Amino acid sequence: MRRLRDVGEHAWVARLVHRLAMDVGGGVHIGPGDDAAVVRPGRASLVLTVDALVEGVHFRTGWLTPAALGRRLFGVTVSDVAAMGATPRWALLATESPAETASGVLDGIVRGFARGARGAGTRLVGGNVTTGPHLALTATVVGEIDRTPVSRAGGRPGDALYVTGALGMAGIAVRQLAGGRGGRLPQPPLRVRAGRLLAAVASAMIDVSDGLVQDIGHLCRASRVAAEVELDRLPVAPRCRRALGAAASRFAATAGEDYELVLAVRPAREAALRRIVPRLGCRLTRIGRLVAGRPAVRVIDAAGTPITLARSGFDHFRR
Amino acid sequence: MRRLRDVGEHAWVARLVHRLAMDVGGGVHIGPGDDAAVVRPGRASLVLTVDALVEGVHFRTGWLTPAALGRRLFGVTVSDVAAMGATPRWALLATESPAETASGVLDGIVRGFARGARGAGTRLVGGNVTTGPHLALTATVVGEIDRTPVSRAGGRPGDALYVTGALGMAGIAVRQLAGGRGGRLPQPPLRVRAGRLLAAVASAMIDVSDGLVQDIGHLCRASRVAAEVELDRLPVAPRCRRALGAAASRFAATAGEDYELVLAVRPAREAALRRIVPRLGCRLTRIGRLVAGRPAVRVIDAAGTPITLARSGFDHFRR
Repeated sequence: MRRLRDVGEHAWVARLVHRLAMDVGGGVHIGPGDDAAVVRPGRASLVLTVDALVEGVHFRTGWLTPAALGRRLFGVTVSDVAAMGATPRWALLATESPAETASGVLDGIVRGFARGARGAGTRLVGGNVTTGPHLALTATVVGEIDRTPVSRAGGRPGDALYVTGALGMAGIAVRQLAGGRGGRLPQPPLRVRAGRLLAAVASAMIDVSDGLVQDIGHLCRASRVAAEVELDRLPVAPRCRRALGAAASRFAATAGEDYELVLAVRPAREAALRRIVPRLGCRLTRIGRLVAGRPAVRVIDAAGTPITLARSGFDHFRR
Repeated sequence: MRRLRDVGEHAWVARLVHRLAMDVGGGVHIGPGDDAAVVRPGRASLVLTVDALVEGVHFRTGWLTPAALGRRLFGVTVSDVAAMGATPRWALLATESPAETASGVLDGIVRGFARGARGAGTRLVGGNVTTGPHLALTATVVGEIDRTPVSRAGGRPGDALYVTGALGMAGIAVRQLAGGRGGRLPQPPLRVRAGRLLAAVASAMIDVSDGLVQDIGHLCRASRVAAEVELDRLPVAPRCRRALGAAASRFAATAGEDYELVLAVRPAREAALRRIVPRLGCRLTRIGRLVAGRPAVRVIDAAGTPITLARSGFDHFRR
């Protein structure tokens, strides 16, 4: 096995650049291998976001193949672009890894990232490598949007709350993997197309990364409204339902890492939303509504009785 | 002392966003605090780059104040934008830090980064925080360029090689700090204005990050030329000269972290170059030339005799 130490940073980068250079186009004027990438945007606004996956924090060795890890990094990062209703165009990948790492591991990560990106119409145009005590990956995605972006701040009392796809699948996988019960960490669902379509009707939108309740809380604070979420309405992933039975909805409400989209929709836009749903490529479930009041998320049962959850989601500094 | 663990990720981010939100403008439509930043570019091409500073690799605790570390991160990252001749506009900052870190440390890093960026006409528009076993910082800078960018690939035999500023100051500081002899790690010189001006006359340009000889080697490979560098012509920083005397030039040729610009200039552009020099805000020194041949850098003395150096620069995977 050739380790990064055997290959050398510059030889590794040169080989990679050679491979990626075959793959430019799509508004890329200068791709990987120079001081910086140069791309030609259209006349749209730019959407900029950065996200990271850190070994021992977001994943453990063996939970994913290198290619799956790269693909996952792209998925979690592009999710923020999707949540603005924007189109991802270009990406940068920065890696930190021990010199003892097999060079094939870094190769696989880059390949998985670039393939995932390509599948969403996005080019990997540059990056950075450094050593470090563990594997840590940081991705930047630059998107374009030629309409008003959908921020977290446009929600109003009376708006309905919807969520794409299903919740709890990644959370239950992490729990099973951390408990040594094997399995695979599922890939983020890539709601890029759904985000773009839903942007036409959403008053506010956010992706579910830290946990549904907590992320709706972010939307509430930005919009200065409260929210009511009906626990029984949550679309719970079958894998989560099988594992937890009746407790699945509570778990899915806060587990996080779903990378689904939550959006608020004004009553007047409901008809337009219904016309869009068949083209989303995923389920869309009404889970509650925004109400007047201090920013807070009330989780309720079908009768409207409040349900207390042990936590609302993930906080990096408080685990 | 309040640690990040005491403050909590979301409270820390909210406070930061509140502070940074007072500071938008400059083409920023949505700044920090939403899913992604939204900015309005002009009709220029975009220049995208990412760089990182990792504790124990690029710096050690106590070498810099948090604000100086943030400022340094901006400086090393923007250097790649300067080397294309572009104007930096927007930046993202991703941090990895233990939950036990004093929250003031992360505050200081962000403040130093944002101030350094602002000084170069660049807005911090977003970022990411995660925990991790040590401090690791990754920055993305997005620039604009409305002329042909200066890549590494335009050099031709006969071009003269120039370097901005002075070499060896950061290298000698790192050596003294690592040896426990105190001192401060100097800040990168921010050659943004110089890069933009020099782009009008340079056939190829690169910034000196890993070591002058190695970085000229990158330029040679991209341009398919060789280079001759006269060791005695190198502009050695006084601090390096004082510390190493006669050995200073050899050290400065490979020490790296200078973040000066190296450029190739065609003979026909020399007159135009001379008109630009007074406006650069820094020295410009002719250090050698490009010659026909296999990509390689020959370091020579004033008589043209080859000088062998122990190394050409820094390789992250081979230290």
